[in-house]
Amino acid sequence: MPKRHWGEIKDPIYGYIYITEPEKEIIDCFPVQRLRRLRQLAGAEFVYPAANHTRFEHSLGVLYLAGRLVENSNLSEYIDKDEAQMVKLAALLHDVGHGPFSHIFEHLLSKFMNKTHEDMTFWIVRESEIADKLEKYGYNPDEVARLAVGRLHKGGKAFLDQIIRSSVDVDKLDFIVRDTYHTGAEYGYVDIFRLIHTLDVLEENLAVDVGALSALESFIIARIESFRSIYFHRVSRAAQMMIALAMEKAKDELGLISFKTPEEYLAFNDCTVWAMLKQCEKSRQIMENLERRKLLKCAFEQTFYEKDRTISRIFEFEEIRNQIKNEIAQKAKVAPEKIIIDVPTLPSVPYRHSVLMEPMEIPVFYKTKEGKKIPKKLSEISRIFDILKGFMNIIRVYTEAPYREKVGEAAAEILGGTPYSARISF
Amino acid sequence: MPKRHWGEIKDPIYGYIYITEPEKEIIDCFPVQRLRRLRQLAGAEFVYPAANHTRFEHSLGVLYLAGRLVENSNLSEYIDKDEAQMVKLAALLHDVGHGPFSHIFEHLLSKFMNKTHEDMTFWIVRESEIADKLEKYGYNPDEVARLAVGRLHKGGKAFLDQIIRSSVDVDKLDFIVRDTYHTGAEYGYVDIFRLIHTLDVLEENLAVDVGALSALESFIIARIESFRSIYFHRVSRAAQMMIALAMEKAKDELGLISFKTPEEYLAFNDCTVWAMLKQCEKSRQIMENLERRKLLKCAFEQTFYEKDRTISRIFEFEEIRNQIKNEIAQKAKVAPEKIIIDVPTLPSVPYRHSVLMEPMEIPVFYKTKEGKKIPKKLSEISRIFDILKGFMNIIRVYTEAPYREKVGEAAAEILGGTPYSARISF
Amino acid sequence: MPKRHWGEIKDPIYGYIYITEPEKEIIDCFPVQRLRRLRQLAGAEFVYPAANHTRFEHSLGVLYLAGRLVENSNLSEYIDKDEAQMVKLAALLHDVGHGPFSHIFEHLLSKFMNKTHEDMTFWIVRESEIADKLEKYGYNPDEVARLAVGRLHKGGKAFLDQIIRSSVDVDKLDFIVRDTYHTGAEYGYVDIFRLIHTLDVLEENLAVDVGALSALESFIIARIESFRSIYFHRVSRAAQMMIALAMEKAKDELGLISFKTPEEYLAFNDCTVWAMLKQCEKSRQIMENLERRKLLKCAFEQTFYEKDRTISRIFEFEEIRNQIKNEIAQKAKVAPEKIIIDVPTLPSVPYRHSVLMEPMEIPVFYKTKEGKKIPKKLSEISRIFDILKGFMNIIRVYTEAPYREKVGEAAAEILGGTPYSARISF
Amino acid sequence: MPKRHWGEIKDPIYGYIYITEPEKEIIDCFPVQRLRRLRQLAGAEFVYPAANHTRFEHSLGVLYLAGRLVENSNLSEYIDKDEAQMVKLAALLHDVGHGPFSHIFEHLLSKFMNKTHEDMTFWIVRESEIADKLEKYGYNPDEVARLAVGRLHKGGKAFLDQIIRSSVDVDKLDFIVRDTYHTGAEYGYVDIFRLIHTLDVLEENLAVDVGALSALESFIIARIESFRSIYFHRVSRAAQMMIALAMEKAKDELGLISFKTPEEYLAFNDCTVWAMLKQCEKSRQIMENLERRKLLKCAFEQTFYEKDRTISRIFEFEEIRNQIKNEIAQKAKVAPEKIIIDVPTLPSVPYRHSVLMEPMEIPVFYKTKEGKKIPKKLSEISRIFDILKGFMNIIRVYTEAPYREKVGEAAAEILGGTPYSARISF
Repeated sequence: MPKRHWGEIKDPIYGYIYITEPEKEIIDCFPVQRLRRLRQLAGAEFVYPAANHTRFEHSLGVLYLAGRLVENSNLSEYIDKDEAQMVKLAALLHDVGHGPFSHIFEHLLSKFMNKTHEDMTFWIVRESEIADKLEKYGYNPDEVARLAVGRLHKGGKAFLDQIIRSSVDVDKLDFIVRDTYHTGAEYGYVDIFRLIHTLDVLEENLAVDVGALSALESFIIARIESFRSIYFHRVSRAAQMMIALAMEKAKDELGLISFKTPEEYLAFNDCTVWAMLKQCEKSRQIMENLERRKLLKCAFEQTFYEKDRTISRIFEFEEIRNQIKNEIAQKAKVAPEKIIIDVPTLPSVPYRHSVLMEPMEIPVFYKTKEGKKIPKKLSEISRIFDILKGFMNIIRVYTEAPYREKVGEAAAEILGGTPYSARISF
Repeated sequence: MPKRHWGEIKDPIYGYIYITEPEKEIIDCFPVQRLRRLRQLAGAEFVYPAANHTRFEHSLGVLYLAGRLVENSNLSEYIDKDEAQMVKLAALLHDVGHGPFSHIFEHLLSKFMNKTHEDMTFWIVRESEIADKLEKYGYNPDEVARLAVGRLHKGGKAFLDQIIRSSVDVDKLDFIVRDTYHTGAEYGYVDIFRLIHTLDVLEENLAVDVGALSALESFIIARIESFRSIYFHRVSRAAQMMIALAMEKAKDELGLISFKTPEEYLAFNDCTVWAMLKQCEKSRQIMENLERRKLLKCAFEQTFYEKDRTISRIFEFEEIRNQIKNEIAQKAKVAPEKIIIDVPTLPSVPYRHSVLMEPMEIPVFYKTKEGKKIPKKLSEISRIFDILKGFMNIIRVYTEAPYREKVGEAAAEILGGTPYSARISF
Repeated sequence: MPKRHWGEIKDPIYGYIYITEPEKEIIDCFPVQRLRRLRQLAGAEFVYPAANHTRFEHSLGVLYLAGRLVENSNLSEYIDKDEAQMVKLAALLHDVGHGPFSHIFEHLLSKFMNKTHEDMTFWIVRESEIADKLEKYGYNPDEVARLAVGRLHKGGKAFLDQIIRSSVDVDKLDFIVRDTYHTGAEYGYVDIFRLIHTLDVLEENLAVDVGALSALESFIIARIESFRSIYFHRVSRAAQMMIALAMEKAKDELGLISFKTPEEYLAFNDCTVWAMLKQCEKSRQIMENLERRKLLKCAFEQTFYEKDRTISRIFEFEEIRNQIKNEIAQKAKVAPEKIIIDVPTLPSVPYRHSVLMEPMEIPVFYKTKEGKKIPKKLSEISRIFDILKGFMNIIRVYTEAPYREKVGEAAAEILGGTPYSARISF
Repeated sequence: MPKRHWGEIKDPIYGYIYITEPEKEIIDCFPVQRLRRLRQLAGAEFVYPAANHTRFEHSLGVLYLAGRLVENSNLSEYIDKDEAQMVKLAALLHDVGHGPFSHIFEHLLSKFMNKTHEDMTFWIVRESEIADKLEKYGYNPDEVARLAVGRLHKGGKAFLDQIIRSSVDVDKLDFIVRDTYHTGAEYGYVDIFRLIHTLDVLEENLAVDVGALSALESFIIARIESFRSIYFHRVSRAAQMMIALAMEKAKDELGLISFKTPEEYLAFNDCTVWAMLKQCEKSRQIMENLERRKLLKCAFEQTFYEKDRTISRIFEFEEIRNQIKNEIAQKAKVAPEKIIIDVPTLPSVPYRHSVLMEPMEIPVFYKTKEGKKIPKKLSEISRIFDILKGFMNIIRVYTEAPYREKVGEAAAEILGGTPYSARISF
């Protein structure tokens, strides 16, 4: 059943995004409209003042790219109109499960409820008004929900999931460009349409034609530089950890993790939770500091470039991190609770983006004259990709301004290197 | 006393904005940091999803342009280093008095307190921690406060006020470009640096060299198209009026206009007030509609292009507007309170931007070989400017979705023209 | 017969331009490849150093926009696949008849052969290898040739011609953006895709939905400012007139207007003719001056804004212009051949762009709920358009540097106003 | 002696470039104006149609960046006003020695005259009218000439040369952005102003603050991707080799390398030499093929990523390349002169850009709180940089279209890998 055109939405990045009727109805559902009140990059605005874009416009961008991708001359041979519309709807919905401040709230979800934002997306798509709208247009909410988190697992069509969730999915392609646009960080101006136009199916997987290798490498590098300059930025992390701390302290009093229904969960957004945290005795001081830009200070920072993950794994153990914290505290004569060890690349501490950075092998191929696709190993044809696997671990020690010097020196003694306070660059 | 360089801030529009120490300290004051929680274009996000930029980044942009302007080869001959720093600080502070949702709150300020946001800016600069910081660096808070609202009135130096507040001030130059950047509306890509580089002093006024006439005309046109497409957009206005209504209904219960101290006033921002309006019985329904994008519908729209203001003046009388409302209500058999007459260009109804559109004569000159500046009348040398004076009055009739057709037809009978529901374009 | 996709070409403005096989074969024909050696804006590089773009990339851009336009949801109902391909080919070919330095050579064509570049386009499409390629793919060269110059006159389908040649044709839409991109002049960042997406058929004419009125007005203004700042720029015109003079002097010796076959005509391009003019005794000095940027100087300039064309018509008579020239010469005591009267907006003197500026009425409509299109008069709904009809006549007097002052003063006495040398702005 | 401001030039990339009087006079000299007729990227237009920018606008861009760099808060402490002006002039002049088609002509200079374009720059600056202008403003032409090629060797001020010629010089910073802008290749949108603002002096060398490491890495990657996608692009190289061949064949008849005076040398530009090559019997056929886009075809391509240069060195010997050519010819039963072995990264074959890619160590440092600069090894702190040293050798075998398959197969047998004709990607 072909879906009727409804109208268009103006996006500063892609221009006009054309919208079908089912898309319009789902965009107007509360769980999607709520994304207007979830920032894309909570915390980054303390480094990049203009980084105020939201998951709403990002979701529209992902919908758009999904549409362009399924229409390309390769994928359109594997996907019929109805599947194409379903992929676009799943793309639109991929972030509806995010909580306030996105990955920061996910830290609570993970630590106290053993859930991810994908679990919540799956839940919301199936249990909210979205499900009714999907059914109205002939879609199975359960299938769309699974596809929205990249777990449809349709036989012989792994690429459907990979459009939404893989190393070169439309989510990442949108945010690399969008985050650059709104921060001004300039690391993400990548020829994503080269990828959008040339992505193809190899066996059943989404794969990159070697003809687009430069675009792929640029994209990978852009992601790394964006992690370093935006997502893992020292100051941005400080703000994020403060929000994480505030939420953790106030969670019981505010019932942040005792929601039962989608309605209760969806009532939380950046705005409502910020207001709640300001009123709660336990978190108020942190929020006031944030509102005055009195941020935690980085007292020590070290970056490791390691191919194997041994070093990362050491820091994965909260006990080891706590032990380091205690030793620094003792040496610096500062209370341990004034010290925070941050390893943003790790799948543990406060909260992490590392899943976004996972060094997956991306299927690559070239086509023969006869149209046969010959698979290649990306790490064999791309020196850049090879070296970047396992790239970069950052360990940082944060504290409050008055303890910065003492903590920095203690950390430097214990962990080696130079205290941050001795360095002013960057 | 030359001010020490502190560092730089990345802006997606201008690149690096260099910041001095006094600027840094004032940026970190609470009233300036609070601007992070005031959107630049409240309501416009319902038309342009990416329009989530705030008055914080705008204020940094205005600081930047002020710095570029006072350094140009013309103005730098009239302004010494200390004045230049003072102009930049005033530029940074020009918006600190805005309330939640900016011009929408200003409607309350105006209607119930007979104040403008400039009055609040003046108050905040003098009565908050900003004053202490200004004094620390040798500036008179009262003078900076007056300059921030364009009323320093320094003898023989009217251009100082005009840098902050005139037809081609740095405020307007920043937002024309910034609003275009974040909406994607494409009407504001104007060669503002041509103006920044060539603005000069004529007698004591800020004046435009005829060499920059094309840039000036483009700027004027861009403003008009931006008003039509962004600020006065039918849907954007609907959202703004709903917020205005919600605030008006809830104002007493929430104490929105009973603040006594800067602290009380500054506690209001888009986020806190949105949360309050959702909890207040009187405004809750409106906010829930907004959160679900159930907006007021435009039932009738007419645009007049009139050189004299006679027609505008008719609508300035609330009694006349009410009378029209009642007649439409009667003919449509709809309760009058379901009908809203909106004339966004007028200095009265719900709230208005019209002060921003005032058709002021801009001083223009050309320079002789000998360097003499010969004044010209802009309306004589620019046909475009001439025609645009007094440009455009829009009258619209809004109502709720179920009454749209009836109200549209009644309005068309009474006011002439075609009901909006009969037209689907735009 | 659907045309096979061949590949894509990267354009800095539109990104990837997708090309079919017939398009590829025609792009590779010599008359199209030759467009690489015809600058888009001969002379403008003396004002905007980066304005080195050619008619080749412009023609690809026009092909692209034509493709987007015929695919829009309105036009696609009136045009079948074969017609769509034909329109795209005609768009690609619309400029193949241009001679060296484009409009400058057209001055020779017009003055001595009574031809326009459109006549040459018609000739080249039919008489060159392009005709064979068109036939190979089933197109009638004569029809394509007529369409390429906007004179197919297909019964009931006037809009086909108007896509190529009208007030909002794809040619103008491309160059407004492209000339801005390469000059940096910033007047042409217009939302052309709003127009591309909403253009429709009214009766049989290409028409603009009032919903796109802001985009249309911006486009019209952008054209005017571009004329003033780029095409008619004082310095740009000086360079253009020098090339025109050089060609006129050398034309017989170099056989510039004695070509008999397409091959002979197509052998002329900016590069070959520039080299020839440098070797010809009669034009050498002018070319050496150009190569050293010793340009004619503007001694006097006056701009008239007149609604009726009376004043323009006065200057249309070469005898009147000559008389003025002689009087200035006599008063200034300078030989008449040292003086050039330039009225770039006129359909006569040296050569002109004015056909590009013609104030045509553009069909405009709005759609009713039922889908009916109600025609409107543009000049009634757009104040901006109304005022701009008949806009702007510029008269300038040029001479060589040593006579600038004398000629300027004489011209000022005779024509009124201020000599240019007394003004340094702009 | 401070230099007077003359005016500004509009650049599409940087906006307004402010020009002093001495700069203006030197820009108007013939050797600089001639750069308008030397394309920046000869050959690349066959891949990127819009790549028509010239060395003229590039030179203005380099002047601009040099000005911004010497004014930054670090370098301005080491450079006085007069030196700053001299650096800007040298930057402006750094390319005046280029011959037609730039690096392609340099192949002739190198092979038959044992010269580089820098030698010619040095010669032109000293022996042309430029020298007079420099002296008029108090500069020593010999010093400026040496600085223009990065060989002033001023005691204790190595950074002066490095501004013009080093791994992060203003030449490379300009072209990375400019080539991206005009090709649309999207690999070069790099935060060059981060580098421009933070470059500093370490001992006497130009050095990068680790705070700008991301910008530096992005720049390095952008250069590599630009080499692969633009400068070394298969099709671009084909066109370049054809021009190189044409010039080599016609050089004696046209006297391309028998010039004696600057005037004779400067008479050559892209336009004049193209016209000459079309008339010369020996080169005409090649030029006609170029004008019809009948380019050499790549029959075989292999890329090696090698850290040491052993493999590169093998191909450096013309004898070895000839031997390979002969063996391929014999096996393919094709005349050897129909085969070209291209190794664009090598300092030998046809002509090369490799000097531009040289893997130099860039000085890097961080600053302590006390302002001390602590040197670091870039390869230690940047994994990306480390891996990229010695990056990428490409070997290609070209031939004419009819022999493509045979030559490709023969090359694959001899050199291993797959013939190009069997692969259609890219």
